[in-house]
Amino acid sequence: MSEDWQQVARDVSALLREGRRQVIAKMAGPMTVDEKTGRKDLVTNIDKSNEQFLIAGIRNMDPTAKVLGEEGFGDKLTSLDGRVWIVDPIDGTMNFVKQHDNFAMMIGIYQDGEGQLGFIYDVMNDVLYAGGPAVGGVWANDQQISAPANLALSEGLIGASAPLVVHDTAHMQKIVHDSAGMRIYGSAGIEMINVLLGKTLGYISYLKPWDIAAGQVMLNFLGVRVSTIDGQPLNMLSSNLVLVATEKAQRDILQIEEDDVSL
Amino acid sequence: MSEDWQQVARDVSALLREGRRQVIAKMAGPMTVDEKTGRKDLVTNIDKSNEQFLIAGIRNMDPTAKVLGEEGFGDKLTSLDGRVWIVDPIDGTMNFVKQHDNFAMMIGIYQDGEGQLGFIYDVMNDVLYAGGPAVGGVWANDQQISAPANLALSEGLIGASAPLVVHDTAHMQKIVHDSAGMRIYGSAGIEMINVLLGKTLGYISYLKPWDIAAGQVMLNFLGVRVSTIDGQPLNMLSSNLVLVATEKAQRDILQIEEDDVSL
Repeated sequence: MSEDWQQVARDVSALLREGRRQVIAKMAGPMTVDEKTGRKDLVTNIDKSNEQFLIAGIRNMDPTAKVLGEEGFGDKLTSLDGRVWIVDPIDGTMNFVKQHDNFAMMIGIYQDGEGQLGFIYDVMNDVLYAGGPAVGGVWANDQQISAPANLALSEGLIGASAPLVVHDTAHMQKIVHDSAGMRIYGSAGIEMINVLLGKTLGYISYLKPWDIAAGQVMLNFLGVRVSTIDGQPLNMLSSNLVLVATEKAQRDILQIEEDDVSL
Repeated sequence: MSEDWQQVARDVSALLREGRRQVIAKMAGPMTVDEKTGRKDLVTNIDKSNEQFLIAGIRNMDPTAKVLGEEGFGDKLTSLDGRVWIVDPIDGTMNFVKQHDNFAMMIGIYQDGEGQLGFIYDVMNDVLYAGGPAVGGVWANDQQISAPANLALSEGLIGASAPLVVHDTAHMQKIVHDSAGMRIYGSAGIEMINVLLGKTLGYISYLKPWDIAAGQVMLNFLGVRVSTIDGQPLNMLSSNLVLVATEKAQRDILQIEEDDVSL
């Protein structure tokens, strides 16, 4: 693969734009929807065909790439050594099926465990968010994004997933109470776009590596913290209860977690 | 006022489009944010100026109009007799302040308590949803909207407000569990647009008359049920715990409420 990261970014963007074209064309036809772990965890024929398309494109660009894909068309990874591509062909599959909107295509590129480039494509709005340290910026299509304001928890809205709130996992109800309000958009990719744009100050959810890989690279580059709910680095080969937050809000939320432990 | 409802619809649309132009111009300047009942219940100078602008336009069209406005620039109403205009100048003020997105301008027109015309303006996307029985249809800008599919609760996503879920008011957690998932967008207007478009099958929240007046007219016209959480008609002079739902989902949710009573 070219070590020219600007070129890589252009090639991946072109691959994603062609993937989008195919996804939108297929949405006009019949969709096959299957359950994975349960009735709220769906996969469609389009998730699968898009992952196959994206991974083929990645292997074409980078024949020795290690690829981790949500739907299993990549490799079985046991480490993050070397260059690793992490692919989510349709993030927010429930939204994709029920709304035909509010879903994303995502790719993260890591080198020896360090995030280099992230891509989150808001498919229906046709806005591709892309960037990271390898290219020195983050863009929404052609427009560069500035770092979101470093808001305290009380000053902004927080994204979440519904089960965390219902079960009050990790003091979610206290976190929501202390924030300016909770929003639930149903796609990690769409949630992270909102954080990138400063429309929410954070997001808390159980996430798999492909849900967070792309967002983590861009968010970190813009000064937003991505950690476990305990403030530890994510294990990118496993599930994590992920806390995405501005620096100040991360501190506020970690304090809530700590206060409880000390009771 | 002209009894030509098509003309009324055109005049109100023009009024809202001019209101939008002014709101967007003012968003570039300094915003004054005040708390109403608490730190999560906000009002800005733009809510107030837009309500004054809209009510002046309404009185110009309909000099004998009775007007109910969120920010208090209308009349004190004690009945819905005659023609009543119900105005929400900025619905989703928290989103307006924190996101500069995902808020709406809304007007509902009722005649002797019967909804005639509703208008919900998604300001940042520049899409005006308008219609009702007086004009025989509902449109998104120039495109007519078909009735959303009559989904059962298990078949679709449901919108809600965060406090209902946190406090499990009216069995919200069971309702969310039985649905395909919960979404929280933070604006009654944006939530009702999602129901109109079939992106969610319903919405449950405590609402004031101005939060629901416009949506109720368009939703009812397209066969979506709007009632209290007990299935009763709304009191349009008061707050209600509102259940918006497709016919089938309304039945499913009323059954959940009933099952509990019978315990």
